[in-house]
Amino acid sequence: MLDLTQAYSGPFCTMHLADHGAEVIKVESLSGDQCRTWGPLKNGHSAYYAYINRNKRGIRLDLKTERGKEALRRLIANVDVVCENFRVGTFEKLGFSYEKLKEINPRIIYGSISGFGLDGPLAHRPCYDIVAQAMSGLMSVTGYPDQDCVKAGPSFGDNYSGTYLALGICMALYQRERTGEGQRLDVAMLDTLFSVMENFIISYTVAGLVPGRMGNIDPGIAPFDSFHAKDGAFVMGCGTDRFWADFCRIIGREDLIDQPAYRTNVDRCRNYLPELKRVIEDWSSQYTLDQLEEMIAGAGIPFGRILDVRQASELEQLRVRKMLWEVYDPAIGEVIRIPGSPIKMHGRGDEARSAAPSLGQDNRTVLREIAGYTDEEIDAMEAEHVI
Amino acid sequence: MLDLTQAYSGPFCTMHLADHGAEVIKVESLSGDQCRTWGPLKNGHSAYYAYINRNKRGIRLDLKTERGKEALRRLIANVDVVCENFRVGTFEKLGFSYEKLKEINPRIIYGSISGFGLDGPLAHRPCYDIVAQAMSGLMSVTGYPDQDCVKAGPSFGDNYSGTYLALGICMALYQRERTGEGQRLDVAMLDTLFSVMENFIISYTVAGLVPGRMGNIDPGIAPFDSFHAKDGAFVMGCGTDRFWADFCRIIGREDLIDQPAYRTNVDRCRNYLPELKRVIEDWSSQYTLDQLEEMIAGAGIPFGRILDVRQASELEQLRVRKMLWEVYDPAIGEVIRIPGSPIKMHGRGDEARSAAPSLGQDNRTVLREIAGYTDEEIDAMEAEHVI
Repeated sequence: MLDLTQAYSGPFCTMHLADHGAEVIKVESLSGDQCRTWGPLKNGHSAYYAYINRNKRGIRLDLKTERGKEALRRLIANVDVVCENFRVGTFEKLGFSYEKLKEINPRIIYGSISGFGLDGPLAHRPCYDIVAQAMSGLMSVTGYPDQDCVKAGPSFGDNYSGTYLALGICMALYQRERTGEGQRLDVAMLDTLFSVMENFIISYTVAGLVPGRMGNIDPGIAPFDSFHAKDGAFVMGCGTDRFWADFCRIIGREDLIDQPAYRTNVDRCRNYLPELKRVIEDWSSQYTLDQLEEMIAGAGIPFGRILDVRQASELEQLRVRKMLWEVYDPAIGEVIRIPGSPIKMHGRGDEARSAAPSLGQDNRTVLREIAGYTDEEIDAMEAEHVI
Repeated sequence: MLDLTQAYSGPFCTMHLADHGAEVIKVESLSGDQCRTWGPLKNGHSAYYAYINRNKRGIRLDLKTERGKEALRRLIANVDVVCENFRVGTFEKLGFSYEKLKEINPRIIYGSISGFGLDGPLAHRPCYDIVAQAMSGLMSVTGYPDQDCVKAGPSFGDNYSGTYLALGICMALYQRERTGEGQRLDVAMLDTLFSVMENFIISYTVAGLVPGRMGNIDPGIAPFDSFHAKDGAFVMGCGTDRFWADFCRIIGREDLIDQPAYRTNVDRCRNYLPELKRVIEDWSSQYTLDQLEEMIAGAGIPFGRILDVRQASELEQLRVRKMLWEVYDPAIGEVIRIPGSPIKMHGRGDEARSAAPSLGQDNRTVLREIAGYTDEEIDAMEAEHVI
């Protein structure tokens, strides 16, 4: 497949496909993907680029020239999928509308990621992840009720729309096996985040409620929250009456189990703040996380420490799960550790097969093998700075 | 495909597949999916269940009985995919290990979602979404630096692991077209959230930094933040020097453009807090969101209002994008509005084909058509309360 995307959303889409065996050819402009300059840098090269573009091949192509466009057309004729995340309309202006793509390759699957989608009044507006987080309602339900809205730390608008496009591409490929027909896929960051708002949306559309921010509390379960320990913080949830009773025993407050204020989950939700939270935190703040984990998780109650990025990255569970891959990056000149694939296929390789491509690294082989150019033609394109 | 999942993660996975044409048979226990009791309720029935299970068929099966197991085996023999999100080991104890599934159907694709994955020291621990948010590092980078960590509002650990499993299933189906072989898929909530932490992780693994919470600021771009207006709040980002200069003109502060403290993006990042933020907010708080949108978005600068759930749900852009589907739910007895699919396939239907199934609704047709039971056999199963 041809990957004309850059930055995060599109390259994250094709990363998943490349990780599981797709032959992804990254097509960069003469100056390269903008994220080649993004930190963290190591030895002057972007580890960000190295992470998100592992397992891909790379060519460079000047799509403003006629020869560059011709090369792209010849590539499109011989691939299954094309995807891009240009501003809406840009690829079409370059001469590559869906109709044109279908002329070149009737079975083509063409996927786009954009901020607001290909139609609607906002289609042509620029979008950042934070704009999609703001407009989807996500920020309005993230944070503490007495404080300003806050975005989710990771750029979910970017990475989730990339993941949805990857899913759409795989659906379209499988459907094509049955129908022989290609597909036009259109994923928007705003749609994406709206679609993962779960019961917040139907609370409004069905019950007329407008949910707000609740910190770490679940409106339907109590106790379910974050709490302070002597040496850090943790989360815990008692989703059943049995967990609640077990928890009361752990904290030496069997008297709470049958207290009318806390007898059922509905009672506990109603009376959680401020009293029950205070009882729990007065207790938990006397213990270390190690002690609390032994007591709470030991009793089978869902429990998790709030880990920082270092602690999470060094977690034994994630090591066993191979969630960090080691890859030698030739540009950086060192082995770096980058997040692996979360889709575990048993019996398959679970590692990076190759490092991210240097700019134009595979110009010659890709143009020869996939587009059918001769070495002489490729030499001429090089001399003219088309590639 | 057979869907033995319940609650949110698994049903969200199969919802995406059902939305795009997969024949999903939801297999429920005698008491039904736990989310049949989850709010919001309407006319005594769960709109949550109705939302997440549209487009699926449903049967009821007591897997604790030998006749129930036999029926499941006969179904497995005739489907492409089986997925479940039981506690790790539960499905195997019921007699359905992957090896057993392969005996029944050598081409089967078998997917599981769990909190921590099928192996590793935490495999058997119970997990809630918030536990995965805590342990992945996500909470440590969400919120304001001077305040407690906070989880992202939506349950990304659930819905994203469901989306990853849907992607894995489609990859495996497509690969099977080439290889003829099935697949064992294993997706964990913790892996999932760790995998979407983007540059936070490589900042640590490559550069040795441990990123913390930064509210709505992007560490690499300034100004890029949320701000107060006269009548609400909005986000805005100036990702280029041109946007910055345009913005200075909008606020009537051309003098800032070339001030040494703000000349380059690096300067602006360094000197954003507290001074530049105060300058912007002193200005923005004099205007309404309507006025600010006209000025800022009108100049082509990425801008978004922070919308609440009602405002987001009523957004014209999302209406045009068909991000809310209307479906008549027979249990509720009314038309309800539920979030649609974010994967837009042009020229395909973009609506719910059918409502969520009532408990056991398709027992007879599914057992007859897919498992090959006779009506008499099905009558007997009914009489024995196996279905």
